[in-house]
Amino acid sequence: MAADSEVYVLGGYQTDFGRNWSKENKHFSALMREVVLGALERTDIAPEEVESAHVGNFAAELYCMQGHLGAFFTEVHPAFSGLPTGRHEAACASGSIALLAASAEIEAGRYDLQAVVGVEQMKTVSAAEGGAFLGTAAWYSEEADGIDFPFPKLFGRLGDEYDARYGLDDEYLAEISKINYANAKLNPNAQTRTWYMNKDHALCRSDDNPAVGGRIRIADCSQVTDGAVCVFLASRAYAEKYARGMGKRLEDIPRIKGWGHNTARLRFSDKVAESLENEYVLPHVRSTITSAMKRAGIADVNGIDAIETHDCFTTSEYMAIDHFGITAPGESWKAVEAGWLEIDGKHPINPSGGLIGAGHPVGATGVRQLLDGCLQVTGQAGDYQVEGAKNVQTLNIGGSGTTSVSFVIGV
Amino acid sequence: MAADSEVYVLGGYQTDFGRNWSKENKHFSALMREVVLGALERTDIAPEEVESAHVGNFAAELYCMQGHLGAFFTEVHPAFSGLPTGRHEAACASGSIALLAASAEIEAGRYDLQAVVGVEQMKTVSAAEGGAFLGTAAWYSEEADGIDFPFPKLFGRLGDEYDARYGLDDEYLAEISKINYANAKLNPNAQTRTWYMNKDHALCRSDDNPAVGGRIRIADCSQVTDGAVCVFLASRAYAEKYARGMGKRLEDIPRIKGWGHNTARLRFSDKVAESLENEYVLPHVRSTITSAMKRAGIADVNGIDAIETHDCFTTSEYMAIDHFGITAPGESWKAVEAGWLEIDGKHPINPSGGLIGAGHPVGATGVRQLLDGCLQVTGQAGDYQVEGAKNVQTLNIGGSGTTSVSFVIGV
Repeated sequence: MAADSEVYVLGGYQTDFGRNWSKENKHFSALMREVVLGALERTDIAPEEVESAHVGNFAAELYCMQGHLGAFFTEVHPAFSGLPTGRHEAACASGSIALLAASAEIEAGRYDLQAVVGVEQMKTVSAAEGGAFLGTAAWYSEEADGIDFPFPKLFGRLGDEYDARYGLDDEYLAEISKINYANAKLNPNAQTRTWYMNKDHALCRSDDNPAVGGRIRIADCSQVTDGAVCVFLASRAYAEKYARGMGKRLEDIPRIKGWGHNTARLRFSDKVAESLENEYVLPHVRSTITSAMKRAGIADVNGIDAIETHDCFTTSEYMAIDHFGITAPGESWKAVEAGWLEIDGKHPINPSGGLIGAGHPVGATGVRQLLDGCLQVTGQAGDYQVEGAKNVQTLNIGGSGTTSVSFVIGV
Repeated sequence: MAADSEVYVLGGYQTDFGRNWSKENKHFSALMREVVLGALERTDIAPEEVESAHVGNFAAELYCMQGHLGAFFTEVHPAFSGLPTGRHEAACASGSIALLAASAEIEAGRYDLQAVVGVEQMKTVSAAEGGAFLGTAAWYSEEADGIDFPFPKLFGRLGDEYDARYGLDDEYLAEISKINYANAKLNPNAQTRTWYMNKDHALCRSDDNPAVGGRIRIADCSQVTDGAVCVFLASRAYAEKYARGMGKRLEDIPRIKGWGHNTARLRFSDKVAESLENEYVLPHVRSTITSAMKRAGIADVNGIDAIETHDCFTTSEYMAIDHFGITAPGESWKAVEAGWLEIDGKHPINPSGGLIGAGHPVGATGVRQLLDGCLQVTGQAGDYQVEGAKNVQTLNIGGSGTTSVSFVIGV
């Protein structure tokens, strides 16, 4: 990769995903304000330095009756009036689509320093109404209209597909849930950090853990979350200047080493029909992961020290395990059983707690994954630090495995 | 500009903006299908050649209860399964934000051939409900909530601001409306091509032309439109290959010569407060226009043969006239009076009929402007051709002058 196409991540800021901003009577613009000002302070960047901003958001039109999300960035600081902004959307992968757009503009030489904000305020509506809104990430009229909680049902079918092809014991899904909740207790910004959860609870088949869609029960689900994250992306030239100013070496600044991006057919049934002859249940997700590794010059998952993956449901993390190549296709259970996914395991997944433990403010998730990757590779992840992590890979998924984006972030 | 950062436009396709797709009982995915397949046929590009797709759309979540717009591209043709896609939004400038994202990826060397689709299906709801949806392009809770048709009112205030600073006779607004309707009669895809309109009608102060917001009457407004447009953007390397295959010279293929992009404060009152000491009412719009000219190596508007501007209301076109530099600030009326804006005038504006005459499917408008620019500079605009046009400049605006994007397209 040419030096002028290198994109560095100077740092960022995340809100406490446990907060309910509607109960605080705050507009989502307050979330944006907190993360942007917080990121400026953390990174010691002056507002006048920022040249452009990209916002990742899924559905503020529905949750907050507001579009034109990029423009809210200009409201954060007087120095931002006039800056180029835009909003980017690909359902739950919206944050990563914003990161792709920002990093392409840096590689193209358009800007040297960009802010990327992921934001979603979801606790404005009831769980049922929110479930319908999330249905617009699928083909709404064909897969969600008139169906209560369409997404747990779609990802229940992902588990069913694994079961049909390779066999799947729900005990492994419960273990995935348990690990994410346990990691979240180590993350001061995680939504569930004070919640109680063990494997028995996750396996429980009573009203304590009700079914919401096929084999998906409450403990298998990610959270409904208000949250925002801001990161600053920079060109190599800016990162060099920044490193000097901060008394650091360029090699200490995390860099996006590789990325992958694919979009499968929208309907889950079409995806499954397409992959029948493939060893992977979601082959386009597999391509996204391997493309990112290839661009990073990393041969396989053994070159990755930790993964932040899209566990919107336990079945999507189960899918990620073999799609990352941690096990052979269909054998994800072996990694669970061997304890490889724990923070001190061979292949740590979601040290942050992931979407199940840390929370899932939809449009912010991809940016949160990248920021957690940065914290890991710079040794700043505190109690959820993966010892000695140098390369972290993300996987952010929109819809039922439809849009997938992956980044390799490293030093 | 380095050769590898040149972005070419190979052609495209527009739907008939006069159609009502809800009355045809068709989902917006049918609009996307028609424009993508139409663009492939027009340009003689094989579907397997397309490497990535970007969708510009404002608010399908509200109009159609559907997000994740990029994924619908993969549904158009089996060859598209797996392609990277994303959706981009900046209110009525969404189409241009998609073009900026796509062209940055080409400049960065990520892809050689990209599809950009702008799409909006708006006739799914009543005029009043649609007016509220459009209010989400402003700061909804502060500028639109509880207000009938907030946008005509906001752009009425733009006229009031001109009136206060420089004087404004509504007769000139009526003339702008008349020209756009007249041009639309020459455009076979224009929504109003069969509608009756003259200056007397536009000046009429009766129920034939009712007020909808301050000085803004029905004849001052752009249309509520179902429509979509697809264009193909290519790297220089791909464009060279394409030109050879089509028996053309590279110099005959239109190119994006320059672009501008700025975002002002969101609330109209904040914009006006910021610009009080400025000779331009919307100085960030002025910057967008001059940035695009500068990147194109064009000194001023005399190097531009035609303009496709964002006449969401007659006041926004009135603003564009002096912001493009056709007259001194505040003297836009002189260009109207002199007949400069007509197709055969000194500075033709909206030969297509613009948003008032051709129609305004919100997320498609920026892409439609670029495609019309291509048709003009390649002499393919038919009855609305501006004789000998070599450089066309667009201006696409989101919100009340909030996000602005401009392209210079030329051969």
